[in-house]
Amino acid sequence: MIGGTVRLSDLPLRADLAGQSPYGAPQLDVPVQINTNENPFPPSPALIDDLVESIAKVAADLNRYPDRDAVALRRELAAYLARTTGLPLTVQNVWAANGSNEILQQLLQAFGGPGRRALGFEPSYSMHSIISTGTQTAWVPAPRAADFTIDVPGAVRIIEQQRPDLLFITSPNNPTGGSIALDDIRQLVRATGGIVVIDEAYAEFSGRPSAVALIDEFPAQVVVSRTMSKAFAFAGGRLGYLAAAPAVVDALLLVRLPYHLSALTQAAALAALRHGDDTLASVDRLIAERIRVTGALRSQGYEVIDSDANFFLFGRFDDAQAVWQAFLDHGVLIRDNGVPGFLRATVGTEHENDVLLSVSALLKEKS
Amino acid sequence: MIGGTVRLSDLPLRADLAGQSPYGAPQLDVPVQINTNENPFPPSPALIDDLVESIAKVAADLNRYPDRDAVALRRELAAYLARTTGLPLTVQNVWAANGSNEILQQLLQAFGGPGRRALGFEPSYSMHSIISTGTQTAWVPAPRAADFTIDVPGAVRIIEQQRPDLLFITSPNNPTGGSIALDDIRQLVRATGGIVVIDEAYAEFSGRPSAVALIDEFPAQVVVSRTMSKAFAFAGGRLGYLAAAPAVVDALLLVRLPYHLSALTQAAALAALRHGDDTLASVDRLIAERIRVTGALRSQGYEVIDSDANFFLFGRFDDAQAVWQAFLDHGVLIRDNGVPGFLRATVGTEHENDVLLSVSALLKEKS
Repeated sequence: MIGGTVRLSDLPLRADLAGQSPYGAPQLDVPVQINTNENPFPPSPALIDDLVESIAKVAADLNRYPDRDAVALRRELAAYLARTTGLPLTVQNVWAANGSNEILQQLLQAFGGPGRRALGFEPSYSMHSIISTGTQTAWVPAPRAADFTIDVPGAVRIIEQQRPDLLFITSPNNPTGGSIALDDIRQLVRATGGIVVIDEAYAEFSGRPSAVALIDEFPAQVVVSRTMSKAFAFAGGRLGYLAAAPAVVDALLLVRLPYHLSALTQAAALAALRHGDDTLASVDRLIAERIRVTGALRSQGYEVIDSDANFFLFGRFDDAQAVWQAFLDHGVLIRDNGVPGFLRATVGTEHENDVLLSVSALLKEKS
Repeated sequence: MIGGTVRLSDLPLRADLAGQSPYGAPQLDVPVQINTNENPFPPSPALIDDLVESIAKVAADLNRYPDRDAVALRRELAAYLARTTGLPLTVQNVWAANGSNEILQQLLQAFGGPGRRALGFEPSYSMHSIISTGTQTAWVPAPRAADFTIDVPGAVRIIEQQRPDLLFITSPNNPTGGSIALDDIRQLVRATGGIVVIDEAYAEFSGRPSAVALIDEFPAQVVVSRTMSKAFAFAGGRLGYLAAAPAVVDALLLVRLPYHLSALTQAAALAALRHGDDTLASVDRLIAERIRVTGALRSQGYEVIDSDANFFLFGRFDDAQAVWQAFLDHGVLIRDNGVPGFLRATVGTEHENDVLLSVSALLKEKS
């Protein structure tokens, strides 16, 4: 090691970062890992073959920079959204990046920043506040109702008071699982004059229509962010995207780092999209499992928050951290998102869910 | 298309972005593309085979998030730097991201921001100022000497006046090609109390020792950024990295987007590193060509700036933009970096360089 004589506190770190810890769930090697809302089903052999063949083609050209605007990939993402929403999205409506985190960061770089503020309803995806702060956008947390839904009249009042430049609505919400109706989103969009980011990372698991349907109605406001990490089982490939008016995409071109998406990412994501119908079949299976597992947990005496996603929040626990540790001691890694009294578990394979249920039954007996 | 009724000027874009154009050289399909300093030699068949095999392995697990801290990749990058510098770098000394642009952005997010400023010697890599501005870090341009070197006593005076929080030194400098001696860097580091980023994107093409040698001497200040895009011929794979004291890496963990490096990127970069010796053999060939081509251009009557990189700046032109267009009309895409009187060309294959030289001879005759 070189340079080991200085510590972090010796460096001229930005003041608001001092004392912070890096974001991230523990990456532990235990039998049942249901803590990060991954899709438990690996890519099909056909997808892997196609992906590998696609990579082999672009590998021969890796000395060259990739398509800076990822046109082919954006075209296919638009086609996927057009198919599932029935709306005529084109390549101009879609932007892509290394995970939806980078999408969110680019949105905040374009529309946030010093002197601007972003509002979200907590508990929700913690990267919304982290990336807001990271881009010097003031973060305004607004509360959710006791059942973790958004109380729309109350939210409208807060929005009118706070006048955020960006509003974040996560639907289905992470880590609580519920989603919000389009008419409710409409009211929130009307209440704010600014950009509204509807984070639909888990949209495929929900029966609600996508907020993509609102883009044409509010083209200067509504942005829908998506990811291939969950329904497309592509967390390792890191591909986030958004749907919005073409002008929003034009804005992001001003802040994106040039050549941000590698040729490998573009080729691999295209392969994953070609096998989309196949992969998305896992969604129904996971929804069925979500219904089974949440029902069983309720039968065991747990409280489970209604979920439209591939995870659910359950409790109530006097000491959630201790229960999290007890699950881990039995080989089951779930997530403590800091929601008092609750823990989050991802819907896994049938076997993983059975293990979760046997441990939850055991812990209930002991308590 | 949906949402086509709004224009960029209708959106609440951050004020400092209004009226800007996206960064980027034209991506044109012409016979000789020597405008973005790519390595003209494609990966070897052995590298491609290894890379494809590595991707096939990780593809089976793509439903899972990648190693958030890219430990295996950082270990091999550290080993490469240790081999080439003779210094005992370890995984703790290295950080990696999607291209050196993301490395630079993370550095500016950690050590720059509102109320802080970054200084660089222009003309240089324009992303230094663009990413500084993008992270709300005030950009202070300092001039280079007429021959594009850094006048060290003058630079020390400017640094002492301006007291930048971050200092950028590009060596070899892009787009001018010259590098700077370690003793000169030492003087600049001593003049500033802040972070000094030595951007060594083109280091492998230079005979100068790397500034990695200064990290142990100035552990709270010196950061060396690198890329696999050039010498490793991996521009399409997007892999930038840095060497610094472990505390600097700890700081970047606070601002990096979680899971920023895909499993595909990590696997592909590891494969590229395994074949590093082979790929890096192209460096000598490109240096020999640089010497040949710059010599020939001088013989033709052009002025060529001394270069330690895989490109060179040549001129002088009354109307550089017109000459750029004339080269393009003859199928040769070079770069107008906005340096008055000069254009930049990348050292290509022997054949590409011959085409450049025949066009340059032709244009000289006509002028």
